[in-house]
Amino acid sequence: MGEKHLQIVLAARPVGEPSAADFRILESSLPAAGKGEMLLRTLVMSLDPYMRGRMNAAKSYAEPVAVGGVMEAGAVSEVVTSGVAGFAPGDTVIGMTGWQSHSLSDGTGVTKTDTGEWPLSTALGVLGMPGLTAYAGMRNIGRPKKGETVVVAAASGAVGSVVGQIARIEGCRAVGIAGNPEKCDFVTGELGFEACLDRSAEGFAEALAAACPAGIDVYFENVGGAVLRAVIGLLNRDARIPVCGTIAHYNDTAPPPGPDHLPLLMRNALVKRLTIRGFLVFDFADLQPEFAATMKQWLAEGRVKYREDVVEGLENAPQAFIGLLRGENFGKVIVRLAEPSRD
Amino acid sequence: MGEKHLQIVLAARPVGEPSAADFRILESSLPAAGKGEMLLRTLVMSLDPYMRGRMNAAKSYAEPVAVGGVMEAGAVSEVVTSGVAGFAPGDTVIGMTGWQSHSLSDGTGVTKTDTGEWPLSTALGVLGMPGLTAYAGMRNIGRPKKGETVVVAAASGAVGSVVGQIARIEGCRAVGIAGNPEKCDFVTGELGFEACLDRSAEGFAEALAAACPAGIDVYFENVGGAVLRAVIGLLNRDARIPVCGTIAHYNDTAPPPGPDHLPLLMRNALVKRLTIRGFLVFDFADLQPEFAATMKQWLAEGRVKYREDVVEGLENAPQAFIGLLRGENFGKVIVRLAEPSRD
Repeated sequence: MGEKHLQIVLAARPVGEPSAADFRILESSLPAAGKGEMLLRTLVMSLDPYMRGRMNAAKSYAEPVAVGGVMEAGAVSEVVTSGVAGFAPGDTVIGMTGWQSHSLSDGTGVTKTDTGEWPLSTALGVLGMPGLTAYAGMRNIGRPKKGETVVVAAASGAVGSVVGQIARIEGCRAVGIAGNPEKCDFVTGELGFEACLDRSAEGFAEALAAACPAGIDVYFENVGGAVLRAVIGLLNRDARIPVCGTIAHYNDTAPPPGPDHLPLLMRNALVKRLTIRGFLVFDFADLQPEFAATMKQWLAEGRVKYREDVVEGLENAPQAFIGLLRGENFGKVIVRLAEPSRD
Repeated sequence: MGEKHLQIVLAARPVGEPSAADFRILESSLPAAGKGEMLLRTLVMSLDPYMRGRMNAAKSYAEPVAVGGVMEAGAVSEVVTSGVAGFAPGDTVIGMTGWQSHSLSDGTGVTKTDTGEWPLSTALGVLGMPGLTAYAGMRNIGRPKKGETVVVAAASGAVGSVVGQIARIEGCRAVGIAGNPEKCDFVTGELGFEACLDRSAEGFAEALAAACPAGIDVYFENVGGAVLRAVIGLLNRDARIPVCGTIAHYNDTAPPPGPDHLPLLMRNALVKRLTIRGFLVFDFADLQPEFAATMKQWLAEGRVKYREDVVEGLENAPQAFIGLLRGENFGKVIVRLAEPSRD
């Protein structure tokens, strides 16, 4: 068929913000599936902030990508040829197959997609890892109670948008924070948050306080930085902070300049009896079936909406990823590589 | 009897470290108990770090002491005259009666002491609020498991000493941090901690790492500052941080200079799935009966030891309190005002 195998590898470890030069695109002929393997063609691939951590040499909760190695990503693929029991050509599967047009798999860590009436890309977003992240963090740590105020940043993004909509479903006041007025309009107009603040607008901290007249009971943390600092003083007694990410700091090369706000957080933790708890979505994998059933119902009822920011072609993934870290995306970032060969 | 009523009042709100001039001693004639009141003579009074917060104008979890008002303290008193049902002259009681030689009470918030075979002063220490603080923080948040490593600072103090001994009882490795070598000797020699580091010694952070070869599973936070910063990198996955105090910052007048270590903590919270939870002993008042019974047994079995730093005379309380904030005390600080009139 003349199809080529395209791969994006880590060319160099970035210092600070990644640049295009930190990625390299490789082209080769298609790999041959060995005995007990299947050949997968990537259809849609996810870009997520966590990938920035994989580009560093230091191990965090997972091993870094090696220099010269294929960048890591979850993706939905179509089975082209299969030597793996239970998988047949034409099946669509999800797995951590990486930034590449094709991959080989022995079936380990790969499962068939199960998005029902929803597009395959939702397996990477609202019905996938970001959706489960929001669901698990709210269910197990945030524990929103009716009438409480829930604040989340990156509110138009893959995780934040679901966090706020869950807050609404639970009868809470949902206050979002986003990067520009257009995103804020979407968050309040389409997603139904009570308020959304532009974090880059002058007087952001005061606006946040005004939007939370009864204080903040749950702050779903996925950004850090100035947003966290503005939140601390507004937290109520017994507030919960699920810590899911700190994207404002992923490109930091050293601790930011002072003053040191750590004592402020700890003092507030004590006086207000805060619970601050970090989590990774893998820790809550047992919630997957409950999550999938619940989220499909919410989608069907129109109680949860989602927005995708679709990038066409693997070659555009590096620039889209750099933009994601800058907050330039608008919705869940999906890279579309190929159409399914049958419907 | 010619007895005088001595009171220490807040003369001025301190800026930074309190000085003797922030306190004033007043002398007057004994107050007269009205109908339904009792006159109490203070026997022993507690000095605790939390009192620094009460000297500020800002409300934290409790109202500040008014300028000109009597400083707040828990104390054990003897009933001199009683118009309150259930209390008779000669009874010893505990309550928040303040920095004064005598007080009036209608019985609200005052209970009879119940230290059994142990000295009355233990009602202010190992069998009182500091002991319950350690017990509740470990039981409800720290949740030490056999074989884990527990780190606590101010390890020779009222709370820290109990935290580490509970860790030992639970089969954990107890690592203390204290302010000088003499205290460290006491913590390892008398209290049985596996190790104790002098926080002011050169190479403290490296010594702490060496003393925790398997990392840190529970960090009982009562100091903040450089100790917390040294701990963060050593925390294990799923570590718990009960936040009980941040004494290193009680005299701060502004956030300390940078760099900003807040992102470091949040990043660690995420990657290591930390639980950081603040608490006040009042939140766990329902544990009091279980605590009292358990602690008395531990004391009787010699599994928990305690040390008091006794200051003679109310007039010496301000200087002792200033010293407490500097870490100059050695053990639970008790001010002795009077002997019981009968035994």
